[in-house]
Amino acid sequence: MPKDNTPLFTVSTGPLPSSRKVHAPGRLFPDLRVALREIDLEPGCGEAPVRVYDSSGPYSDPAAGIDIERGLPALRAGWIEARGDVETYDGRAIKPEDNGLRRGQPSNLEEFPASGRRPVRAKAGAVVTQLAYARRGIVTPEMEYVAIRENLGREAGLGAPRDGQSFGASVPDHVTPEFVRDEIARGRAIIPANINHPEIEPMIIGRNFLVKINANIGNSAVASSVSEEVEKMVWATRWGADTVMDLSTGANIHTTREWIIRNSAVPIGTVPIYQALEKVGGKAEDLTWEIYRDTLIEQAEQGVDYFTIHAGVRLAHIPLTARRVTGIVSRGGSILAKWCLAHHRENFLYTRFEEICEIMRAYDISFSLGDGLRPGSIADANDAAQFAELETLGELTKTAWKHDVQVMIEGPGHVPMHKIKENMERQLAVCDEAPFYTLGPLTTDIAPGYDHITSGIGAAMIGWFGCAMLCYVTPKEHLGLPDRDDVKVGVVTYKIAAHAADLAKGHPAAKLRDDALSRARFDFRWRDQFHLSLDPETAERFHDQTLPAEGAKSAHFCSMCGPKFCSMKITQEVRDYAASGMAEMSRNFREAGSEIYHPVASE
Amino acid sequence: MPKDNTPLFTVSTGPLPSSRKVHAPGRLFPDLRVALREIDLEPGCGEAPVRVYDSSGPYSDPAAGIDIERGLPALRAGWIEARGDVETYDGRAIKPEDNGLRRGQPSNLEEFPASGRRPVRAKAGAVVTQLAYARRGIVTPEMEYVAIRENLGREAGLGAPRDGQSFGASVPDHVTPEFVRDEIARGRAIIPANINHPEIEPMIIGRNFLVKINANIGNSAVASSVSEEVEKMVWATRWGADTVMDLSTGANIHTTREWIIRNSAVPIGTVPIYQALEKVGGKAEDLTWEIYRDTLIEQAEQGVDYFTIHAGVRLAHIPLTARRVTGIVSRGGSILAKWCLAHHRENFLYTRFEEICEIMRAYDISFSLGDGLRPGSIADANDAAQFAELETLGELTKTAWKHDVQVMIEGPGHVPMHKIKENMERQLAVCDEAPFYTLGPLTTDIAPGYDHITSGIGAAMIGWFGCAMLCYVTPKEHLGLPDRDDVKVGVVTYKIAAHAADLAKGHPAAKLRDDALSRARFDFRWRDQFHLSLDPETAERFHDQTLPAEGAKSAHFCSMCGPKFCSMKITQEVRDYAASGMAEMSRNFREAGSEIYHPVASE
Repeated sequence: MPKDNTPLFTVSTGPLPSSRKVHAPGRLFPDLRVALREIDLEPGCGEAPVRVYDSSGPYSDPAAGIDIERGLPALRAGWIEARGDVETYDGRAIKPEDNGLRRGQPSNLEEFPASGRRPVRAKAGAVVTQLAYARRGIVTPEMEYVAIRENLGREAGLGAPRDGQSFGASVPDHVTPEFVRDEIARGRAIIPANINHPEIEPMIIGRNFLVKINANIGNSAVASSVSEEVEKMVWATRWGADTVMDLSTGANIHTTREWIIRNSAVPIGTVPIYQALEKVGGKAEDLTWEIYRDTLIEQAEQGVDYFTIHAGVRLAHIPLTARRVTGIVSRGGSILAKWCLAHHRENFLYTRFEEICEIMRAYDISFSLGDGLRPGSIADANDAAQFAELETLGELTKTAWKHDVQVMIEGPGHVPMHKIKENMERQLAVCDEAPFYTLGPLTTDIAPGYDHITSGIGAAMIGWFGCAMLCYVTPKEHLGLPDRDDVKVGVVTYKIAAHAADLAKGHPAAKLRDDALSRARFDFRWRDQFHLSLDPETAERFHDQTLPAEGAKSAHFCSMCGPKFCSMKITQEVRDYAASGMAEMSRNFREAGSEIYHPVASE
Repeated sequence: MPKDNTPLFTVSTGPLPSSRKVHAPGRLFPDLRVALREIDLEPGCGEAPVRVYDSSGPYSDPAAGIDIERGLPALRAGWIEARGDVETYDGRAIKPEDNGLRRGQPSNLEEFPASGRRPVRAKAGAVVTQLAYARRGIVTPEMEYVAIRENLGREAGLGAPRDGQSFGASVPDHVTPEFVRDEIARGRAIIPANINHPEIEPMIIGRNFLVKINANIGNSAVASSVSEEVEKMVWATRWGADTVMDLSTGANIHTTREWIIRNSAVPIGTVPIYQALEKVGGKAEDLTWEIYRDTLIEQAEQGVDYFTIHAGVRLAHIPLTARRVTGIVSRGGSILAKWCLAHHRENFLYTRFEEICEIMRAYDISFSLGDGLRPGSIADANDAAQFAELETLGELTKTAWKHDVQVMIEGPGHVPMHKIKENMERQLAVCDEAPFYTLGPLTTDIAPGYDHITSGIGAAMIGWFGCAMLCYVTPKEHLGLPDRDDVKVGVVTYKIAAHAADLAKGHPAAKLRDDALSRARFDFRWRDQFHLSLDPETAERFHDQTLPAEGAKSAHFCSMCGPKFCSMKITQEVRDYAASGMAEMSRNFREAGSEIYHPVASE
């Protein structure tokens, strides 16, 4: 394809305010350059820069030359090649129906240009999954990468006493590559990393690691274009999305996905049944194993890192949904329910599950076992249909593990607060601690327009209880398609939920950022407060709406109390007073037989 | 004051979409007209209108003649008079310093016009608090009003099995006036209702009732005007605020408050020390009991319904804060800490506490015992200073009860999730179940600009655990003064938290609205879905951003999946299929010895 200097479209690039990209080297693999973000604080404040987890990829690095039409550099290509267990081959030819086109109908969409790429797969007899490596005792570069990443740049444990309630999780003080390996071998964590998606910066999902979040994007039959979707992916990861699911339906699914994967530094998940359904004109009963299988291969070769597969929607479970208030709300679940009923047959994803494992193993694609029967309302939470399906997912987990395929389990949905813990506990028991990945859950149904919040509450709680990844919900949920602003609000809300969960679990390093921000707040270092926050731009904009003057950012007061009436200022006086006078006063009082001053606790 | 036809300013009036004001009569007091909102659903949908709690007052009633310069009708005046235990008297004269003016300096603010009102107080020897009446076995009209209100218009219990985890709360199936009386007598609930604020529609705060929310408003030294503040009050109650605190500082405090109280149908709370501090030019050490006492009388005569009083900030507790990351963050707490240290004396609010009780008793003002030492950061949560103060608040609760004064207790603040429950449990134990009233708590410090969400998570949880009222936090918290939009977002977020808590506690009627909305969602009754939501305007606007056509609101699909690919539609087919064919198929399979269909659970 000829290329002039005008990019087809651009995406959001550049560092976050006062932030630099830093790269930490590996110990086992010295060439590793693990990306972290370092936030610089005000000169002279006496505080070290704060390192934070960075999901934004090269886009936030001014030194990276971003070229959307070339895609990101293949960070993992050398690692994959060095293992000597994959082969390049002629992939499946792209067909018009991959993009929802009739034979001969031209696409109205620009193809991704650098399409000389040939796919790789496991050599005959080789097993190339991180799970297989881990079971063999091998530490991969991917494992060391995530170990360093999880430590947020700390080179050793903090040695501080742990403060949290972990409900049986055991986040170590310092994550080693060997710990990562052992958790993966145990099935308790996964690194979603298709060997055809070498562009990713590896990340890990498991209850003994930082809680992760996923953002959904994707065009629909109703709206949106490829440039919008790529920008949404970049934008979502800029604000903290750890993985992105492309839930596109309608036309141009294949081409859209190619653009997304080649430009994504985070794992990409899909629901292959969506595309398969498009290929049969939207008629669920016309779905066949052959079409589905072909779609899996198509997406595997493109580099999708995890597949949502609704193999737990068994024929026997479907009648359990008939009396529900909201029936089956999962798209995948309803498609398969319809197929099962139309054919009076067991779900072919269930009957073909071992064949699916073999395909996914050849590319190291992880399962995200879909909860097609998740409740769609408070009324339907934790019902027989939901838990019957969960039992099947537990059975399938063991089958996937048997095939050395990595697995996580999807969870609800809509659940009132008092029923959230049961979801987590049952999932841990039934699925033998395979990572849980929930959508929210929403804790009430009465606030469309605010479902990032109704679900953020449930997400924080289930994250605390042990959920490994939280699928975001945007303010547009139930109402329309999220735009750029909605994506950002959804991501930031879920970063809050995940971080609140990390704090409550007692993650050793999570509190460092809270403490740094609180100190900045107490010291009236306004800019540091903005820079340390999840959304520096919004924080600064809100501040400036009340006190726009540039001087107000170094003022030792804020708009809530004004200059004269400031509790922080008074506290400083109390503190100075305590430092100078309290010891003496305390002695005087004690000598007089009074207990009026308590001694300062010396924690 | 001469009055032409141009109002000084206007406020938001009119019903919410598809909603009518209805009034339920009393049983003991047949003249009662308890305001409720009834939401009409689409004609022909076969669903009854849904009654919901309505905090919006007469403003949402088109039949009410709103005149801001006259104030609301004195709903309770006849009830108060009929008890025969109050006397009208010449109130304290308004002084220039009440508005922060120097003697002789003219106010730049329009006085509230209808100022011929003379205050009332208890006759000598009479005790006019709802607590005193309850203890004497009397059911007041206020008590029956709140009983009917709490039932959301239900005239009997639902008789349905309870679904929730209440942590020791016992919300009855149907609230009777006698139950209200007993809970108040026990000290477990309060009806904040100053006899000088006859305009309110009574409401109740207690763990065995619906969880309530408070919105803070108030001008500051930096910004805002009286018309803005009155509109914020009306606006906050329109979206669900059950009480409003006027936290004004700076000039014109007295006049602003008069406008707010005369136009408020919800209880108004204040922090009297703020105004007292203004009267001494902002110098905490110049505060005296006489100035504070005079301020209490001033506000009591105006009709403030509850006072935040930081009597628990004892001199002995102050050194416990010296090593905190964020010291003392409560304004009231820091003012009193400074006073204590400056004078080397015990907090005068503590030493004069019984005198304060006597004043508040004469007007039936409720205590909101302030947590002046609440933590201002995750680092400081649940520390020695906070819990030392709580012990003192427990002691003061008993003192207030001894004087027949109603009491609630303020709580934090900033608390990570795993430390929230300890707050609730300690408060219940130490304060003998007096209602808890918390600010959030915020579950992380790293998201300024989103602190409605960081705190909404904590608020939902502590509401579930037993907190009776949740003080809202707006997106501007820590950054600036909330505007109208921020107030709305804060209120709706806290309605979500309170409602999620009611659901999780197993409130018998809370789920009715969720279920009605979920049925509307499943039936694609878009307008009903909007109308049943906490914020119908935002829900409809979000929907229309993707599918603006008027026809889309009656379309049996939405923008997420489009017309062809709709899980709700497929579910309906599954359901139809199940209804027609499943029984027979199931029989056939069973006869063939197969267990492939589970029987539909007959709950």
